[in-house]
This record gives sequence, structure tokens and C-alpha cells, in this order.
Amino acid sequence: MKHALVLARRGLGNTWPNPAVGCVVIRDGRVVGRGWTQPGGRPHAERVALDQAGALARDATAYVTLEPCAHHGRTPPCAEALIAAGVARVVSATEDPDPRVAGRGLALLRDAGIAVTAGICEAEARGLQSGFLSRIQRGRPWLTLKLATSFDGRIATSTGESQWITGAEARRHVHALRLIHDAVMVGGGTARDDHPSLNVRGFGDVRQPVRVVLSSRELPHLPPEGAGVGPLWQVAGEPSAVMADLGQRGLTRVLLEGGGQTAAAFLKADLVDELVGYSAGIMLGGDGRAAVGSLGLSALADAPRFDLVETRRIGGDLFHRWRRIRN
Amino acid sequence: MKHALVLARRGLGNTWPNPAVGCVVIRDGRVVGRGWTQPGGRPHAERVALDQAGALARDATAYVTLEPCAHHGRTPPCAEALIAAGVARVVSATEDPDPRVAGRGLALLRDAGIAVTAGICEAEARGLQSGFLSRIQRGRPWLTLKLATSFDGRIATSTGESQWITGAEARRHVHALRLIHDAVMVGGGTARDDHPSLNVRGFGDVRQPVRVVLSSRELPHLPPEGAGVGPLWQVAGEPSAVMADLGQRGLTRVLLEGGGQTAAAFLKADLVDELVGYSAGIMLGGDGRAAVGSLGLSALADAPRFDLVETRRIGGDLFHRWRRIRN
Repeated sequence: MKHALVLARRGLGNTWPNPAVGCVVIRDGRVVGRGWTQPGGRPHAERVALDQAGALARDATAYVTLEPCAHHGRTPPCAEALIAAGVARVVSATEDPDPRVAGRGLALLRDAGIAVTAGICEAEARGLQSGFLSRIQRGRPWLTLKLATSFDGRIATSTGESQWITGAEARRHVHALRLIHDAVMVGGGTARDDHPSLNVRGFGDVRQPVRVVLSSRELPHLPPEGAGVGPLWQVAGEPSAVMADLGQRGLTRVLLEGGGQTAAAFLKADLVDELVGYSAGIMLGGDGRAAVGSLGLSALADAPRFDLVETRRIGGDLFHRWRRIRN
Repeated sequence: MKHALVLARRGLGNTWPNPAVGCVVIRDGRVVGRGWTQPGGRPHAERVALDQAGALARDATAYVTLEPCAHHGRTPPCAEALIAAGVARVVSATEDPDPRVAGRGLALLRDAGIAVTAGICEAEARGLQSGFLSRIQRGRPWLTLKLATSFDGRIATSTGESQWITGAEARRHVHALRLIHDAVMVGGGTARDDHPSLNVRGFGDVRQPVRVVLSSRELPHLPPEGAGVGPLWQVAGEPSAVMADLGQRGLTRVLLEGGGQTAAAFLKADLVDELVGYSAGIMLGGDGRAAVGSLGLSALADAPRFDLVETRRIGGDLFHRWRRIRN
């Protein structure tokens, strides 16, 4: 299952509106098929792994990070494919909350006489599929707020100079972060001031994330969708309405990159699920530009709290990742 | 030598104006004596280790983290003690820059026919003795700035609420940090607003750090020196003059705990050698109180830069330590 989860990870940012799934087929202790959801969401991981296994899938065990689908979409359901291939056992990490599946995938397998084990590595799988689960269960994408700041939480000097606070390795890491998100979002002010490219560079010919710009006003010229640049969506409105709209349009994982007012608006609406910080060993002082705008908090108890997930050095900078504590 | 460095560390914050030194005496592959500088600076590490070794010091090897002293102070010089004990070899990590020693300790040993090896684990020893070296070479203590902030670099809400941003484990860790400093310093505003105790709690009956309050105005009532509370020194003036004064008075390691204006003044004067951050997974917003006051930087290139030394989780908070890059 650990191996299937690693494979599933390859699809993150690449499969929306479908989940990024991994599948490993094992027969007599040997891996005979490996698959992960392909760009755009098809073919599914199980289909890829079964095709690779061929006749060796008979009597094998299939490990899947998400319950196999049971509904006829643009492809036949994976549960049927597993039955047809003659696998003896299916091990699943987590149930698919999609109402078209929701236990019916595993039920189909059991009805066909296949041994089913569910809930293996479930916490890890749920973490990996947080975007897909969020869209199905909350009707909105998983939202990660990225902030690259000085030690004292500033994103520019008082004169507006901001290039570069963090080092080259951290900036490259941001591209890897964009790669595993369906979309990169910024506020209109940032779009107008910085003309950001909001694409993934340095990782070859990859599926580019959607560029989402939040503004009710006319946008500055940003390059049209094309080679190396994803679709450009202009959206406007209250943060929660924007998130619902993005979920409706199929996004499962959105990376919010600022600026400070936009970050504050989504924090205030309690829509931020994850924080990613890149902190540089530099001091810019209280007159520097703040990474997050006013939140209007009157009490500490009202401030949103996040749990530290990981911290490490990237180049000369400090990388840290946190997850919203929801009770 | 690694073991001697661990012993030396026990003296940090406890030995000023003397250096915190460690000494291990080994004969026939067996440790026969261990010592570290005792509270107040006496007896020296070598004296303690030699007394422990007794007659076994003859023909032994002594590992010392700093060149043994050569001058008659309130105690006879350690170089003479090593000669009198009959050690065959002395391994030293770093030379003592004190003009009364400065190579004369090692020269005395060599003249007495003792084999001397110098410069073993020198970088580590210099890091450990940064406070002592700073006082001798720059005439001022080593200065560490500690900031406990929200993710976005705030130390209180806009309404001034600040208890508690970081968790209990991080707050306990601050006491361990005070323990290895000679003094804890705050600005007058913080002293007036918070009446901080500036002592070490939770570590038993330890030598308390000096409390330094920076203010030219009258101070609020702070408890007098006594059990569990160190001496109270009020100082005033330009940061560099204050630091020279503290060096003159014997301090080697000072921990600056704020507030924001005081932190900014010492950063502006480029007197901060080390940063220690405790970051909580909480967002307070741009209207929260900034950890560092205005620095008036017009260009990023003018901002002081620090190198990441370590990062890890402490309780629910992120601990990170940085050291000033000086060319």
C-alpha cells in the first residue's frame, strides 16, 4: 500500500476533477502491475495496473489507495475491470465518498467473491486525497496558502522591493508545489503589480495549473493559455462563493500565493486548510510590507490555529508546513 | 574532545566573565578525570579534572576545549597544574585570545616537554565559546535575539493580547535558553507593560541570569535580587555603547527578549549575532503587533542576513535558530 500511495502522489495536480489514485498488483509476492491515474484523470490507476499485469492479474492481490469506482462514466467501472481480470483479493486504503460510489465499489467486488480488506493506511490516503475529498464532501477545493517571507513575516521592504527574499532553491521548490496543485490563485492587486507567470518551470513538459485571478476589475495583460502556461480564469466575489465556484468547475487543490489582502480575506473566512511557509534569514522590520493583511481579531482565541506537519531547510531558507486544526 | 565539549556546555551562562571550558583526562584508553568550569568561573575545568584523576594523571592525555591559562589570577595557571600533574600530552580545541594567554599556555606546556596538539574540533569549540571570544575580541557580549511570534511575525493581537501565542513546551524551552545566557535583556517599554520576571524557572536552584533593563526613565517595581531572581541592572544609551558597557562589566552571553523597538534598535546597529525563533501555527494579521519595529531599510541588500543553524518542532511550535553572516 505504501508503494501504491507513492504512485498515487504522481497524479496530484494532474488528474482533476478526478482523484489521484495509485494501484499495485501483486502475485506470488511479485509486483506484476503498477498504475496511477493518468493526466486529466484517465485511464484510472487500476486500468493501467491491470493492463500491465495482463494474464498475471488472475488470482493476484490489488492494492488501491481509493475504493474502485462502480459507476459507468466515460470509462467502464474499475470494480468490474478487477472482477473481469480475476483478481483474488483487493486491499483498499479509503472509501470513495462520491455518492455514485460510496461503498458500492467494494460491495460489487465482494458480491463477485473477491476478498476485500478496507482501511489500510487510511490516514495517509485521506491526507493524499484531501483535495478530492474536500470537493466531494465540502463542495470546494482544498486550499493551501503559501507565504515566502522574512524572519519577521514581511514580503517586501517599505519601498516595495521583494526580489529576492528567499533563495533560488526555495523558489524552485515553489514550482514543485505548483506542480501538485490544480490551480494557482492570486489577488488582482498582485496580478496588476507583479504580472506573475503562475506556471510551473523547470520540470519539463507538464500539465500546467489553472491560473486563477481574483478581481472584479479589468486584468492586466497576462499571457494567454498555451505551451507552458495554464488556462486563465478570472473570478470575483466573496471568498466562500469563489471556492464553491472553483469546486463546481472541478478544482480539487488550489494554491493561494497572495497578496496580503487576499490571504487575509481567505483566512478570515476560515477557508485555508494548509499553510506553507518559506522563511528567509533576513529582517525587514515593522515598516516592511506584511505578508497577511488585517484580520481584525480582538482575541487570541479567535485566531485560526494550525498544526505543524513538517519543517526542514531548503537551500538557505526554512521550509515549514502546517495544517488547519478543525474540531 | 567531543566529550569535553559536552562538559563545557554545562558551564554556559554560569561562568562569566570566565569562559565555559571542558576537560577530559584519559590514561590507557580510560577516562580518569572529567571537569568543567564551575559556577562563577572557578575552579577551572582542568583543575577539577586533574583533582579527580589524582595520581592517574601522570603520563595521561588531557583534552581541553580552550588553551589552558598561563597567567596567575585568583588561581594558579592551569598550564602549570598540567605540568605538575605530569600529563604526557595535551590536546586543545582552540587558542585563548585573551592577551594574558594567547599561545603562552601551549608554549609553557611545550617547554615542559609535553606533546601538544592544537585545533581539534576548533569550529565547534569556537561556536561554544562565542560569548567569551566576543567579549575578548570585540569588547562586547554575544547577542542572541529571541522572538516568539505567530506564523506571520506578530507578538500580540491589535488589542494587545499576547498570552499565549506559543505553547507550554516552547515557553519552558525559553527558560532553558535563559539558563545558558549570562543575562536577559528587555527594553523599558516591555519592563513597564509586562513586569517580566526574566528569571529561570523549572530547573532547580540555578545561578540566575542578570536582568538588564534598557531605559533612561524610572523603572517599574521589579523584584530585587534574591532567591530565584538575578541582579537587576538598569542601562541606557546607544545600543553599541550599552553592549560595550555590558562587556566591560563581564557579560559574555546576552539574550535579548524584546520588545519590538528594542529589537529593531539592536538589529539596526548590527549587534545581533544570533536569532532564535519560536513560531506558532496561528495567524494574527497585519493589524497585530509586529515583533520587530521599523528598520527604515530602503533596499533588500541592506537587510541583515542570517544563516539557518537548526530547526525542529518543540511541542506544537516551530523552533528555529540562525546565526548572523559576517564577511
